[in-house]
Formats: sequence, C-alpha cells, structure tokens
Amino acid sequence: MSPGVAPAPLSTVRIAVDCMGGDHGPSVTLPACRAFLLKHPQAELILVGTAAALQAAHDMPRCTPVVASEVVGMDDSVEVALRKKRDSSMRVAIQQLKDGAHACVSAGNTGALMAVARYLLKTLEGIDRPAIAAVLPNRRDRYTTVLDLGANVDCTPEHLLQFAVMGSALVAAVDGTPEPSVGLLNIGEEAIKGSDIIKRAGELLREAGEGGHINFQGNVEGNDIYKGTVDIVVCDGFVGNVMLKTSEGLASMLSEFIRQEFTRGPFSKLAALVALPVLRHFKHRVDPRRYNGAALLGLRGLVFKSHGSADAYAFEQALARAYDAAHNRLLDRVHDLIAETLQARLQTPPASDAPAPSAA
Amino acid sequence: MSPGVAPAPLSTVRIAVDCMGGDHGPSVTLPACRAFLLKHPQAELILVGTAAALQAAHDMPRCTPVVASEVVGMDDSVEVALRKKRDSSMRVAIQQLKDGAHACVSAGNTGALMAVARYLLKTLEGIDRPAIAAVLPNRRDRYTTVLDLGANVDCTPEHLLQFAVMGSALVAAVDGTPEPSVGLLNIGEEAIKGSDIIKRAGELLREAGEGGHINFQGNVEGNDIYKGTVDIVVCDGFVGNVMLKTSEGLASMLSEFIRQEFTRGPFSKLAALVALPVLRHFKHRVDPRRYNGAALLGLRGLVFKSHGSADAYAFEQALARAYDAAHNRLLDRVHDLIAETLQARLQTPPASDAPAPSAA
Repeated sequence: MSPGVAPAPLSTVRIAVDCMGGDHGPSVTLPACRAFLLKHPQAELILVGTAAALQAAHDMPRCTPVVASEVVGMDDSVEVALRKKRDSSMRVAIQQLKDGAHACVSAGNTGALMAVARYLLKTLEGIDRPAIAAVLPNRRDRYTTVLDLGANVDCTPEHLLQFAVMGSALVAAVDGTPEPSVGLLNIGEEAIKGSDIIKRAGELLREAGEGGHINFQGNVEGNDIYKGTVDIVVCDGFVGNVMLKTSEGLASMLSEFIRQEFTRGPFSKLAALVALPVLRHFKHRVDPRRYNGAALLGLRGLVFKSHGSADAYAFEQALARAYDAAHNRLLDRVHDLIAETLQARLQTPPASDAPAPSAA
Repeated sequence: MSPGVAPAPLSTVRIAVDCMGGDHGPSVTLPACRAFLLKHPQAELILVGTAAALQAAHDMPRCTPVVASEVVGMDDSVEVALRKKRDSSMRVAIQQLKDGAHACVSAGNTGALMAVARYLLKTLEGIDRPAIAAVLPNRRDRYTTVLDLGANVDCTPEHLLQFAVMGSALVAAVDGTPEPSVGLLNIGEEAIKGSDIIKRAGELLREAGEGGHINFQGNVEGNDIYKGTVDIVVCDGFVGNVMLKTSEGLASMLSEFIRQEFTRGPFSKLAALVALPVLRHFKHRVDPRRYNGAALLGLRGLVFKSHGSADAYAFEQALARAYDAAHNRLLDRVHDLIAETLQARLQTPPASDAPAPSAA
C-alpha cells in the first residue's frame, strides 16, 4: 500500500441525488443541495425526483433534473423497491452511475437501497458482498470508520478481509490518511476470545498486513471504537448494527437525562442558562449530523446512504462525503487494493501451515 | 410462570466473599463488606483471603474468616486459575457454596471466575452453558438486564432460550417483577433480519412465551436496551460483550468531552461551578457503580462478579445484588423455571410444523 500510487483526483464530480428519499424528501434534500453547491464549485448534481418536486429546483446552478415517477417509501420492502417501483427516484438515481455520474446519495431505506444498488451495479471483482461503512467520533477528536453496519449478518473470514481492504481504501481516499490502521472487533476474555470465524479472520488480516496491503493492528474491543485506537474497525453486520444502534440509544438516553436535569427546577434552569454556551459546544462536538453519510462499499459505483431522518445540514454532510470519495477516486482505489491483496494471496502458499508437518 | 409459586425468602443469607479479587483487593472489599453488613442485619459473610489480609477484618461482626494461601491475578489465565492455584481465594470462596454458603462474590477476572465456578459447581440440569447477566440503566429510570455478556461466543437457539429463562428468573427474584418481559436482540433491516440462529431462537422463545413460561415480546434492537422496551434482552456473548464495551467506551468519551468543555476557559469554569449540582445529579443517575454486580447464571450455586476496578461503593452494590438473589432463592427459581420450560417442550409436539402437512 505505497502512498505514491494514489490516482489523480477528479476535476469535476457529478453526483446523482435521490431527492425523494428519507423521512422529509425534497424539503430537506433540495436545500441541502443548494448549500452543498455553494461550497463545492467543482460539483455538478443530477437531481432525481418527481416533476412536481423538481420544480423547486429550477433555478439551481450546475444541476440537471431527471424525472422519476415513483418513490420508494421508508417502509417499502426490498421486493417492492426491486420489482414493483421500477421508475423510483432511488433506482433512477443509482442508474445514473452507469450513465456517467461519479456518486449517488440517497436517504431512502437501507435494505432497499442496498438491494437496488447491488442489482443494478453488481459487486466489484474480488468482492463477494458489499458492506456499509460509517464513521463515529472518538476521543482523539478524529473519527473511527466501522464496517459492516448491517448489510451482512453472517460473514466468513474472507468477507471480513474484504471489509478491511475496502475500509482502508475508503479512509485513504476520504481522509487522506495514507496507511490507515485496521482493527478486528473481538471480545476480551482470554478463555473465550473470539469464535473460529474471528480467529481465522485475524489470520487473514495478519497475512494481508504482513504483505503490506493493509495496516493491521490486531484485535480491538468495543470501547476501542470511541477511544480511537485504530482508524478502521472491522466486524460482521449483525455485531456492527447492534453496536451502532446501542450507541444511538445510549447517546439519546444521556442527552435526555441532561435535558431533564437542567430543567428540573428554577435553579437548574438558571444553571442551564449559564452553561448554555458550554453545552452547545459539547453538543456540536458529538453532533451525529456531522458524521452523516454511510458508504455502500464493494459495488461498481459509489453509493452513499444518508440517515433517513437527516435534516438539510446532515444531508449536506452526506453529499460532501460522497464528493470527497468520488473526487479522490475511491472506486479505483478499492478496485486496485482488492486486486493487489487477492493477487498476493493467490501467489503466496499458505505459509502459516508450513511449519506444522516438520514439527509433527 | 404463575406469580404464586415464588419460593419463600431465606431468613439468613450467607455470602462467601473473595476478598483478594479485583484491582484493589482487600483495601476495597473489606470496607465494602463493613458497609454492606450495616445495611443487611440478616446477612453473614464468609471472608476468604490471605491470613495477612484478613487481620484487618478481625473486629467485623457476623463474619467468618477462611484463609486461602493464593490469589488469582487479574491477568492469570484460566489454566493457572484452574490447575495451578488450587488454594486461591477465588476457588476457596466458590467452594464455600458447596459447604453451605448461599452466594459468592468476586471481583476477580471473569474468565477465571467462570471457569473455576463451572468446574467446581457444574451447571444446573437443563442448562448447557452458564451465562453472564448484568443490568444497564434505561430511559424509564429502571434498568434492563442483558445476557449473555461474554461467556459464550457461539450460541445455539437452545442456548438463547435457556438465557431467556434464566434472565426471567433473575429479574423476578431480584426485582420482584412477577412476569418480566423478554426481547431477542436482532437487527432492523427487513431484508437481512437476523441469522438463521436468531430466527430459530425467535421461534423457540415464542413457543415458550405461548406456553406461559416466559413473557416474550419479540425482537428488539440495540437502542431498545437504553429505551427500556423490555426488562430482559437476550443475545449471544460476543454481541453482548461488544455492546457492553461499546457502551462503556461511548459513556467514557462523552463524560471526558463534558469535562473538557467545562474546563476550557474562565467562563466555562464559572459555568461548571454554577452547574455543578445539576451535573452531580446527572452523574449519579448514570453512575455505573450503582449497577455493579453481574450474575453468573446456570450454575449449581449463585456466583456474582464485580467489576475488577470497583471501589468500595461499587463492590457493596455487588454484595447487595447477590444478597437479594439469594434471599429470594434465585437458584430454586432458575431450576424450577428451566424444568417447567423444558418439560413443556418435551411434551408438546412441534406445533409450528403441524398445520403444514394438511395445507400441502
């Protein structure tokens, strides 16, 4: 993984936006697009939505409207999104990737988005399954990228290796970190450390690390995500999803408790008034909207998923994240790094098994 | 699960205490025992430790000293705890359960404690594997019991059913909730909902719910733990451990950020001074020390595990939790509820498959 081989950045980045997705649709996505365009003079947007919705965007510069007649609802099943609503804004937006767009952003429901993206785009060579990667804040005031967050409930060691490679390419592209560190999510108790799948995944990651393809740092535990021990934490989608939802639940409970304590009585309310600037600064620091925008990695096209409940500020962050990824040619990087890692694995005989026969 | 059949409470509760376990040993455990005894006039303690350590306890009422010559270190392997240190305070304390003590509390390392307890006590009839259960605070200002937290990395659907039954007995005994609600930890995306193991576990839990043995409420997600959607959340030990450690990491990061914000400059420090009573109240509300004391369930004896870094206040809570469980005869309850559930499963033909043949 030599830093010198990073591909040259794209000059103009074209992003297809599913304007109808999410809980709020165009009332959030269009203002977000406006704000995004102001900050990204080299970006062009393809706005996909119903004719009625797109009327509000007629004056937006560097935008191409594309009309879609249907909308995938937040509760629509994968079946409906795939087979029934063939002219949905989600599907048409993803289709743009095959017609020249560099990235696609949608706040539509994750299951449908993944299924449609996978169906239309297919996976990259060497990738068995796409994964969902997102970032969480950490104590170092940086962020930790975690994948998979729910696309795959059962993962083989090979899948986890692919996630590690894709995550490395993502962080290198979006962050500019040349050799981002990777940890494998495991549990700490000596006697029961990890399942067989995790143990084998650890071996594969170690080999890829020794081969110089990824910067593998070994096992990490749940608390390391927020400590910022490594740049990338790899886990299966079941564990990742539980981890993410648990974090959301805990953060939400704590912020509710803080609110309750500061409104408990006249003195508390006075204290809240005095502490307001400090509390605001704290809130901004951990604001989940700043971290909005999960990457669907491993597809032959860059798809980013915004939180369904995102407001305009949050959706703009997802657009910016997609822009950075496309600008720094994430797709080429994933492709190259996967090819390099797999080729090395094919060429290397299984070295770890070699000493055993002579010892026996 | 009729509320009428709860066994009569124990009048005198004898608890064996591993005084040497944890990061701080007797300097924490002995003051905790003193404070505990003051509040529990019907409790007796068996204090297990080195002769030197126990000298400090010579004046404590209702205490029986038992000398052990060795100490299991926090980094000692299971192998060392099981085979080498046969006269450790941990092992001798657990042995007391076979000689008449009603519960045992240790802050020693989890892997060693589980292994020694399992070796000496064996599992209850109908239980394949013991599980670790602990409580976490929730938005309802109650708490959610979660198991398993790390004893078992790979679980079958039957194991998860056993966890649900043991958790129900625990909450009924310690909380006095007659029919505590149970949820199965799963992930939310429709298309990818759960692995085959989770799906099958859901079926088993549903049957046990329909049979009236547990109060099963269906699937829950990570955020439901802190919402307090159900009293008991069941998961495998890998997921549970990641969930717990992630929560610890997030809480620790947030409290560090709050501290940093309130000490950033003169104004922030003034605000901190004004807000101090409010912040203190908040801190107490989510103080993890209040929730200290995990139950090792499924053994032929009640073993409670304190956090290794517990201070005297936290260790006292673990003692109190063990007391409540023993006082309300948790062991008998687990035994009865498991027997009842298993018997029903053996007697009932697989009802869910019954309608299929006639429909075909």
